[in-house]
Order: sequence, then C-alpha cells, then structure tokens
Amino acid sequence: MSGADARTRVVAFSGGVGGAKLANGLAQVVDGPALTIIVNTGDDFEHLGLTVCPDIDSVVYALAGKNDAERGWGREGESWQFMTALKELSDQTWFQLGDRDLAMHVYRSWRLRTGATLSEITAHICAQLGIRARVLPMSDDPVRTLVHSDEGVLEFQHYFVARRAEPRVTGFEFSGSAQAARPAGSETLLDPKRIAAIVICPSNPFVSIRPILAIDAWSAWLRARSCPVVAVSPFIGREALKGPAAKMMRELGLEATTMELVRIYGDLVDAWIIDEADAADVEAVEAAGVRCMSTATLMRGVPDQIRLAREVLEFAARV
Amino acid sequence: MSGADARTRVVAFSGGVGGAKLANGLAQVVDGPALTIIVNTGDDFEHLGLTVCPDIDSVVYALAGKNDAERGWGREGESWQFMTALKELSDQTWFQLGDRDLAMHVYRSWRLRTGATLSEITAHICAQLGIRARVLPMSDDPVRTLVHSDEGVLEFQHYFVARRAEPRVTGFEFSGSAQAARPAGSETLLDPKRIAAIVICPSNPFVSIRPILAIDAWSAWLRARSCPVVAVSPFIGREALKGPAAKMMRELGLEATTMELVRIYGDLVDAWIIDEADAADVEAVEAAGVRCMSTATLMRGVPDQIRLAREVLEFAARV
Repeated sequence: MSGADARTRVVAFSGGVGGAKLANGLAQVVDGPALTIIVNTGDDFEHLGLTVCPDIDSVVYALAGKNDAERGWGREGESWQFMTALKELSDQTWFQLGDRDLAMHVYRSWRLRTGATLSEITAHICAQLGIRARVLPMSDDPVRTLVHSDEGVLEFQHYFVARRAEPRVTGFEFSGSAQAARPAGSETLLDPKRIAAIVICPSNPFVSIRPILAIDAWSAWLRARSCPVVAVSPFIGREALKGPAAKMMRELGLEATTMELVRIYGDLVDAWIIDEADAADVEAVEAAGVRCMSTATLMRGVPDQIRLAREVLEFAARV
Repeated sequence: MSGADARTRVVAFSGGVGGAKLANGLAQVVDGPALTIIVNTGDDFEHLGLTVCPDIDSVVYALAGKNDAERGWGREGESWQFMTALKELSDQTWFQLGDRDLAMHVYRSWRLRTGATLSEITAHICAQLGIRARVLPMSDDPVRTLVHSDEGVLEFQHYFVARRAEPRVTGFEFSGSAQAARPAGSETLLDPKRIAAIVICPSNPFVSIRPILAIDAWSAWLRARSCPVVAVSPFIGREALKGPAAKMMRELGLEATTMELVRIYGDLVDAWIIDEADAADVEAVEAAGVRCMSTATLMRGVPDQIRLAREVLEFAARV
C-alpha cells in the first residue's frame, strides 16, 4: 500500500478573500479529497439571529466558482431585494446580506440549531456544490476575534464592516480559543505522515491566521509537522492588496515588511513566497535562515490562482 | 368626554388572503387606530429556523399596499433568488420564501429570539410600514393548528402547502390554545363599550376563525359583546373563492351552504353578509332569527374592498 502512504496530501490555512483565491488554486491542482483547507472562524458572528461565517463562505464560493471576483466578497450575480425590504423594517442594515448569500446563512443557522456541527454543515454544503476538497472550519466551537482599539474592544465585524477598519488597533483577543477543539475527525484526516505540504494562504496574519493558531491543537499540530510549511505573503510592496493587515502592523508599531511577517510567524514557517515587488527582501529572509522566493502573487483570475498554487507546491517540494 | 365614549371602534377577526382584503377595506374606511384586526396565528410555523406567520403577513402586506394581488399571497414585485440558492443546498424547498418576504421572517424571528413578543414586533412592523390600524396577533403564545386527516395528523402548512390541501380532513386541533392568552394590553384596547361593530372577515371558518375562538379569552369576550357581530361569508355560490373551506365542509359531512355556516357560528354572529350568488339563502337565514343581506362579496381590488367594508359597517349600524 505504498501509494496510500505517499505524501500526497496538502493542508492549507486560510482566511477569506485573498486566502480563498489561493485555496481555489490549490483545489484546481491537488486531487480533490487530498486537499484540506482549514478556515478561520474567528470573524464568524451572529447577525439578526443568523450565524454568518464570512471566511468559510468566501472559500466555499471561490471553490464553487460562485464568488464575485469584482466586488471581492459574496456571490456573483447577487441581488439585494432582502436588504431593500429589511431597511423598511429595521435599522440593522450595516451588514450587507445578498439574496443568494442569505440561503447559506439561513440553511447553516437552521442546521446549527438542530444540533449539527459547523464542520458537518460545511461538508454537506461542499458536497452539494460539487466541491471535492475538504473545507474544514478551524473549530466547531465558537471562537470570536475581538479587536482591542482606541474605540475600545470591538467585535470583529463591528470593527471591520460597521467601523470600516478605521479604529486604531492595539491588540487582538480570540475569545473561546482556549476551550476550542479541532473538529471531530480532523486528527486522522490530517495524519502528518501523509502530508506533502502545509500552506499558509495570503491572509491577514492577525485576524485570519492567528485565530487558527490560537487553538492549541492546531499550533501543536503545526509544530509537530514532518513536512514544510510554505507561507504566501499577503503584502505586495508593503501594502496588503485588500484589507487592513498593513495598517494593523503600523498601528502595532511594526513595519509592514516581509521581515516583520517572518518574525511574526517565527519557526512555524519554513519558506516564504513573497511578491516580486518585494523581491529585494529575499536575501534578508534567507539570511535569517528561512527559505524565500519571489513571484507574482497578485491573483487576477483562476489562471493566476492555479499558477501560484503550482509554484507554492513546487517550492514546498524543494524545501 | 362623550366623544371618547362614542362607539367608534371596529374590531375585525381575520385569517389570511380573503380576510386581509376586507381588513384592508376596513382600514381605508375606519380612522386608523380605531380599527383593531385580530389575526389568526394558528397556521404560523417554524421553517428553517424562521418563525413564519402567513396570516399576519397577508394582513400587513394588504394594509401596506405591498401584497401581490395576482398571486394572492406574498409581496408584489417579489423575486426568488434566495429559493434558487437554497435549492442548491437543501431539499427543504417546499415552502416558497420570496427575497423581500424573507426580511419579515428574519426580522421577526430575530426579535422573538431576543425576547420581544409577537404583538410588539407586529406593532413595530406596522409602524415602520405606515399602517395606522392596529394589527394584533390572536395571542403571543404559540397556538398551532393541526389537521386531522386520512393521512394522519398534519401540521397546517404541511397539509396546506406541502400536501396542497388534498388530504381528506376529519377534524382540527388547536394545540396550545387552552394555555394561550390574549396579547398583553388588548383588554383595555378592546373596551366593549366603545366598539361599534365586530366583523368576522370572509376567512376559513375552520382554520382561520376557529383558532381565534378556541382561545377562551376571545370567545368569552365575543359572548360578552354589546355591539353586533357581522360575519361575511367566505362562500360564493357554495364554493370558497380560494382555499379549502368548502372542501373541508364536505369532507366533514356538512353541506357547503350559508345555512351550515350560520349553524357553525351559532349565536356568536348577529348578522351575515352573503354573496349575491347566494341571495336565495337570505330568507332562510332570517327565518332562523339571524339578520342577513346579500351583496357582491368578491373583492377584485381596493375599491371593492372599501365598498364591502362600508356595507359591512352600515349593516352593523342597522342591526
């Protein structure tokens, strides 16, 4: 059974939009079930009685080819009749819920209330949408990212959507992470002897990847790895393509540079892929004892996603 | 304060579609807050974790001018993107939820979970939509109509929508009605000395009006009246315009006639308005000691609703 023992599996850690793009590239390159994408649930929240899981949905929509590439979040071909009607009834309209997107939230919230776990529900949704990769919430237990800021402690979506990421951050808290376990069944699925590469997608280090690593079971699992961890930088020329990662670094008194990212992840990452705009940083990273290469990390469409996924896996094989 | 003591108030008992039409006619004729519409909640149900109140919504949409007059239920200008997306995820698609209509269900379910009562939520919705009449659920306590049939005991929406009212009914049960109270505050609002008329709208006697009367507080209040109760027959030529009322009567071994309706309501109704197609029945009803008149009860649009509402109130004034 040497084939079954071969290192063919890939595990990716992902947040939402940027991470979801690379996750989709990996899903196009890795044979379906051999890919597991562990998704941040720290920015999940309860809104109008619905459990909304923005990062899971971004990954699911990307893998199902249903994401809106223009807007960068939600579903393509979305309509907003629900929001129009909601505005007649309520002032709770700060979070946009598309008519089609709402099916996800209503279906998931209903199943959660009837006792299903988030990972069971996500697996069902993926099967229904023809997604063969395994999309795994980082935990079935609720973990909620809290943003400490000059406006006080804010729930993540309040900070990110309602307050448009404007408050100055001073720190982060992942409420519930100490009690959170990995989803049931994930131990056998992620047998370290079978994994060829672990990929950290180009997601926000503070609010997309750190909530996952704040769960002891995941950070311990990562430390016990016997395969390379390759991280793709979310920065292009010292700015995040989208989202507040670089702004957060500056507010925390850090420079928004590759080297700072390398320090943040420390020995959890064996190799970095950074953008060609930051190619000058390769030498310094390698001098620090961490493998590094530069390439075009901007993913304008699925062909870019596939190309970058291939480069990531080829780099992992060389590390 | 003789003005305040004048009998200017009107109370209507209503189910969904047919009842909502007359309720809207009354709302156009009676000065806003002087009209209270007590609405059946026996066919409310939980669907995908949402509390759906079809009769309240039919009345609210009619009074807000947002009802779909063609289809006979739901909102005008409705779209169905949510259902399209839901079908990708789930087989729980037997009940149609329009994109705009969904705002009502999501908003109400959320408020119920946060501890608001159905009557408080309904009052808020009416205020938001500019409805000046008071729309009052028959109770804030859950009452659920169960249809006993040749297919067993069916929840009402299962019987009505999923099974298209095809099973042969043998009886009805109003689960929870023994424990159900009138909404808080309704006692003072409905001070019998100030009420000019009580109207029973042209709704199904078994599954729209009986659930209301099954609540002791309402039937006792009706018996203690000091003003006439005028009922409008839901039949036109021995058939219900819409819905299974006549079919139910036949299945219960009753004739779908005016006289049978008169017997069903007994002394709870002082005067009947029946359709001109059934004008021949007027004499028999009056011979039984109940006032009766015939007119055009078909309401094709708001002008018909207003005309019939005026006739109802004029008849009540003469009884």
